[in-house]
Amino acid sequence: MSASLDPIATLLEYLRFPSISTQSQHTPDLAACATWLAELFEKIGLKATLHPTAGHPIVVARTIPEPHKKTVLIYGHYDVQPPEPLDEWKSPPFEPYHDADEGKIYARGSSDNKAPTLAHILGVGKMMQEEGALPVNVIFLIEGEEEIGSPHLDQFLQKHRQELSCDVVVISDTGMAPGNLPAITYALRGVAAMEFIVRGPSCDLHSGLFGGAVANPLTVAARLIASLHDEHGHILIPGFYDTVASPEPWEHEATKALERASGGDASIKKLAGVEELFGEAGFSTLERIGARPTVEVNGFGGGYQGTGTKTVLPKEAFVKLSFRLVAYQDPKTVLEQAAAYLRKQLPPGVSLEIIPGHYGEACFIHPESPDGRAAQEALTKTFGTAPLLLRDGASIPIVTHFKKIFDVDVLLLGLANPDCGMHSPNENILLENFLNGIRLNEHLLKML
Amino acid sequence: MSASLDPIATLLEYLRFPSISTQSQHTPDLAACATWLAELFEKIGLKATLHPTAGHPIVVARTIPEPHKKTVLIYGHYDVQPPEPLDEWKSPPFEPYHDADEGKIYARGSSDNKAPTLAHILGVGKMMQEEGALPVNVIFLIEGEEEIGSPHLDQFLQKHRQELSCDVVVISDTGMAPGNLPAITYALRGVAAMEFIVRGPSCDLHSGLFGGAVANPLTVAARLIASLHDEHGHILIPGFYDTVASPEPWEHEATKALERASGGDASIKKLAGVEELFGEAGFSTLERIGARPTVEVNGFGGGYQGTGTKTVLPKEAFVKLSFRLVAYQDPKTVLEQAAAYLRKQLPPGVSLEIIPGHYGEACFIHPESPDGRAAQEALTKTFGTAPLLLRDGASIPIVTHFKKIFDVDVLLLGLANPDCGMHSPNENILLENFLNGIRLNEHLLKML
Repeated sequence: MSASLDPIATLLEYLRFPSISTQSQHTPDLAACATWLAELFEKIGLKATLHPTAGHPIVVARTIPEPHKKTVLIYGHYDVQPPEPLDEWKSPPFEPYHDADEGKIYARGSSDNKAPTLAHILGVGKMMQEEGALPVNVIFLIEGEEEIGSPHLDQFLQKHRQELSCDVVVISDTGMAPGNLPAITYALRGVAAMEFIVRGPSCDLHSGLFGGAVANPLTVAARLIASLHDEHGHILIPGFYDTVASPEPWEHEATKALERASGGDASIKKLAGVEELFGEAGFSTLERIGARPTVEVNGFGGGYQGTGTKTVLPKEAFVKLSFRLVAYQDPKTVLEQAAAYLRKQLPPGVSLEIIPGHYGEACFIHPESPDGRAAQEALTKTFGTAPLLLRDGASIPIVTHFKKIFDVDVLLLGLANPDCGMHSPNENILLENFLNGIRLNEHLLKML
Repeated sequence: MSASLDPIATLLEYLRFPSISTQSQHTPDLAACATWLAELFEKIGLKATLHPTAGHPIVVARTIPEPHKKTVLIYGHYDVQPPEPLDEWKSPPFEPYHDADEGKIYARGSSDNKAPTLAHILGVGKMMQEEGALPVNVIFLIEGEEEIGSPHLDQFLQKHRQELSCDVVVISDTGMAPGNLPAITYALRGVAAMEFIVRGPSCDLHSGLFGGAVANPLTVAARLIASLHDEHGHILIPGFYDTVASPEPWEHEATKALERASGGDASIKKLAGVEELFGEAGFSTLERIGARPTVEVNGFGGGYQGTGTKTVLPKEAFVKLSFRLVAYQDPKTVLEQAAAYLRKQLPPGVSLEIIPGHYGEACFIHPESPDGRAAQEALTKTFGTAPLLLRDGASIPIVTHFKKIFDVDVLLLGLANPDCGMHSPNENILLENFLNGIRLNEHLLKML
């Protein structure tokens, strides 16, 4: 049984759940969002199951399996990044705002990953309604922990590998190419997060009475951060680059095509809102984002945070870091290398607590495989132009799990507009991309 | 007319005012505190005046001037540092807690500077009550902006220089020597504060999609901090040490006496709550605190501050810095040198806003001057032991104003116990010091 659903109204409903996986006060919102998804799947005629995990539930939905048909697993996530800083949003992050002039909907999670996921769901629903059956078996797997590193997904996939067994995986959690051009993403960076805390005096001290006599945890933390790069943006952690693979020769052509199509550095400057770019010497901007590993400070805090002056020598400082990795860097090894490097540099009188965070490997999927070709053709039919081939700087660690567990290709067909503000205030989705995403499914399921 | 006041009850009343000068929401509390002080002066028989300023009011109180008598001006401040971090206080900072076992009262402002100021007020009151008149004319000047750099005091002193004209200034805003031994402070460090903000992208970015391509303001801010020192704690700002005077030969003896009496580094470690000290190579800890200039990071913030991970490349970072200076460094020159040094190091794509803060010169008062000798004798009579001679690492910028405007000696007779937690959570005053402070006045006013 399937029902016709208004795509935009359904999207607005989906966006109203504040499904922030990293903030425990939102656990009930994630549960509600998962239940809503399961009901949506039932409405379009799929059989849906809610699987509790030690964290947030996983939603699985599928067509009735027909053994002679190929099986496509479509992955998405219903959890979102925290919306902070709240005062920079032009509209509340969980009250979706439809800007008709721009043809966009603004909401946290709009492009990452609710609209793209919903485009697949509604596309499958529409095809089932119009054609009665699908040319392939479809399994949807929508999780609620992608933004915190999918801690329970791997185990879930292992446990359900028989019933989730598939021939290809499709994920739309990447972006269109710059210029909002259709693209296949053939490489994703890995990720490895860590937080460290530098502790010094047993309480905040007067910077006059003690300044000069004890190591200041803020200064120490800053020096540790500074030690990560040389002045040319090259990372100084010993061994960090040892296993980094160089791009394959055909990639230079793909990168050049992308630079031509996208407006190159000028377009990236505009997206980032900076006057000048800065990165590792010796590489182009697209290489720096896609093919080179990085370490970024995501948060830094300590000492007096209020207005005015407080002449204090603070007792501690925290730093949140994340690495983006490329093939064949091992995230655990990188975290160990970084920890050892940081520990070696401590002055007397401070201690360092290192809290390793989530991590996932980089991945690489050849775009000229049979499924890769099918996806390229589906994109060409949907958008009227051949897709560009992208390396995406972001990370979807579970892509590697899918590849390893099911031994299949993973097709990354991004639908997010490049100016979508993913992870930032005023995240948005271009409605055109959402509606094209619904159409893309038809071509894709036929081609596969 | 004078009245007998219970010292401890009066102190508790004084400590209940949350007179935090840097936080504008507390402006009414500062006004109330100033009024309370003026009324207290009237109660002990002085003529008190409240002088409004563009900031917080200045309280002046005086005995009826007798031309043949020497005039002593006693300075103090009724404003206090912010109490944050609040969760580290064992009792609420503005609900004074009397720990009878320790013989201490815990409250923000207890040692800095309410109990020492009040000791002078009550000491004068007691002497007037017991002896009818004082051997000297006394003027009290108690301001409400010391913790924000006394922005209106200099102008006030200039304007009222005739009526405030005096022969010596007494200030008890420093500490007893380590071991809670009586001391005269003959040198104070100057101070110069600045905040800087590093701005990069126009909004927070996804660290995967942009990481590696733009300068990260947190990394840049950390590198700027790291550039302030070499690994031996020596400051790298060009010209910073050019005008730093070396200690005079007699000071080596005074420092050694202090080290012997105080337990040296072990005692400082214990006060600071660190296992090891760290500071500029080539100097002893007491020299590092008293005789050498420093720069400390007082606050640093930017990016994600919540729990868990947010893989963001933040748009900005702020840093709050303060320098402690020694004779003959000029605070304005130091701020300019630092600003120029920081500006030179920016990578492309970030901007730097520098907000100079309050500042004041270092000062030096020879302890063997006639008034210095008188103070040493008064301390010896009060405590039964000769005072140690201290360089204090903290700053009381207005000491220099008094010296310049009235061309007189300034006697720094500290009453704060060394473990008083000034500027930190759980600030406290040893009641013994407060009560001795009341007695000290009698000897001091007679000796002068």
